[in-house]
Amino acid sequence: MAAMMEDEVFKVFTTHATIVLVKILLMGPLTAVFRFSRGAFANEEDVAGKPAEERKKLLRTHPDVERVRRCHQNDLETAVPFVLLGLLYTLTGPQLPSAQLHFRLFTAARLFHSVAYVLALPQPCRALAWLLGMGVNFSMAYRVLQVLVL
Amino acid sequence: MAAMMEDEVFKVFTTHATIVLVKILLMGPLTAVFRFSRGAFANEEDVAGKPAEERKKLLRTHPDVERVRRCHQNDLETAVPFVLLGLLYTLTGPQLPSAQLHFRLFTAARLFHSVAYVLALPQPCRALAWLLGMGVNFSMAYRVLQVLVL
Amino acid sequence: MAAMMEDEVFKVFTTHATIVLVKILLMGPLTAVFRFSRGAFANEEDVAGKPAEERKKLLRTHPDVERVRRCHQNDLETAVPFVLLGLLYTLTGPQLPSAQLHFRLFTAARLFHSVAYVLALPQPCRALAWLLGMGVNFSMAYRVLQVLVL
Repeated sequence: MAAMMEDEVFKVFTTHATIVLVKILLMGPLTAVFRFSRGAFANEEDVAGKPAEERKKLLRTHPDVERVRRCHQNDLETAVPFVLLGLLYTLTGPQLPSAQLHFRLFTAARLFHSVAYVLALPQPCRALAWLLGMGVNFSMAYRVLQVLVL
Repeated sequence: MAAMMEDEVFKVFTTHATIVLVKILLMGPLTAVFRFSRGAFANEEDVAGKPAEERKKLLRTHPDVERVRRCHQNDLETAVPFVLLGLLYTLTGPQLPSAQLHFRLFTAARLFHSVAYVLALPQPCRALAWLLGMGVNFSMAYRVLQVLVL
Repeated sequence: MAAMMEDEVFKVFTTHATIVLVKILLMGPLTAVFRFSRGAFANEEDVAGKPAEERKKLLRTHPDVERVRRCHQNDLETAVPFVLLGLLYTLTGPQLPSAQLHFRLFTAARLFHSVAYVLALPQPCRALAWLLGMGVNFSMAYRVLQVLVL
C-alpha cells in the first residue's frame, strides 16, 4: 500500500485533494461565525437561555448566512466529485505534468470561487471560477472513460 | 498502482462511478439552464446591470428550479455514498458478475430517478428508482461488513 | 489489490467508513418517515390522488422534517469528507493505534451528533459532537500534509 504514496501523481493528487477537503470543511466554522455575528440561527436549542422575545428574533435566516451556505453547497456539488474523479483519474496513470495542471487549476479555481462567492464579487468572477472547476472535472472524467471504454 | 486498473471489477467500478459522477455534475448546468429560462436567481451579483425593478423580480425561487435542486441534493445523498461504498466493496474482491449487477442496477436506477424527478413522472416511479439505488448501496455495505467483521 | 484488505489500518478504516456511510444513507428513510408522519411533502406527484384541498395542505415544510434534513446536510458536509480524508490518511501508513483512535472517535461523535440533532438535545451536546468530528478531520488532514509536504 505504501507503494501508492511513492507514486508522484498520487502524491500530487493527495496534496491537492486534502487542501480542497480542508477548504470545504472550513465553510462549516465560517457559517457558524456568520450565524453568531448576524444573529441568525436555525435550531431552538441554539438560542436557549435567552429571553423568549429575543429567541424568536434569533431564529431566522440572514442573507449573509444563506450566501455562505450556498457557497458550501456548491463545494459539495463540485469539489467532492473532484476528489472522487481525481482519485479514479490518478489510477489511470496520467502523465505527471498533465495531472499537476488539472489539480492545480481546480484547486486555484475553487479557492477563488469561494472568495468570489462570500465577498459577492461582480460577475463573471464566480461564473468563470465555477466553469474552470467544472472543465477540469469533465476533462478528468473524459480521460478515465477514454482509458477504460474507448 | 497500474495493477488496480488491470483488475476487471475495478475497471467496471471505475466506469460506472465516472458515469454517475458526471451525471451528478450535469445537474449544475441544468440548474443554471432553469434559472435563466425561468428567471429565478439567488444572488444579487447574478442580476446586476438590470433595472432595479427587474432585479427584485428575478431574485426569487421558482418551483422548477427547486425541483432540479432537490434532484441534485438527492444525488449528493445517495450517489456520492455509492461511489465511496462501491470503492470499498470493490476492494473486498467480489465476483465480477455480482459486482456488475450492483453497479449496473445502481447506474440505471439513478439515471431513471433523475428523469422521473425532473419530469415529475407519477409516483411510484421516483420512489422505486430511489429504493433500488438504496438497496444496491445497502447490499454493498453488507458485503463489506460481512467480509471484514462477521 | 487484495493486499489492501490485508492491511490492518485499511480494514479498520473500511469498517468505520462503511458504518458512517450507512448512517448517512439512513437519514434518507428517516426523512421519509417524518414526511409521512408529519404530513409534509415537497413534490406534487407525492400527494397525487388526494382531494385538491388536502393536497395543498400536505405540500408544506414542517419543523421536524427540516431538522432531520439539516442533520442529513451536516453529514454530507462533515462525514463525506471524513471518508475521503480517512482514505488518504490510511494510505500515508499511520500507526494502527493512532488510526483506530481517529476512526473510533469520529464514528462515535457522529452517531451522537445525529441523536443530539434529531432529538434536539440541549446545547452544547450537538456542538461538542460536531467539534470532535471536525477535530478528527483536521488531525487526519494535518498528518497527510505533514507526510507529503512538510
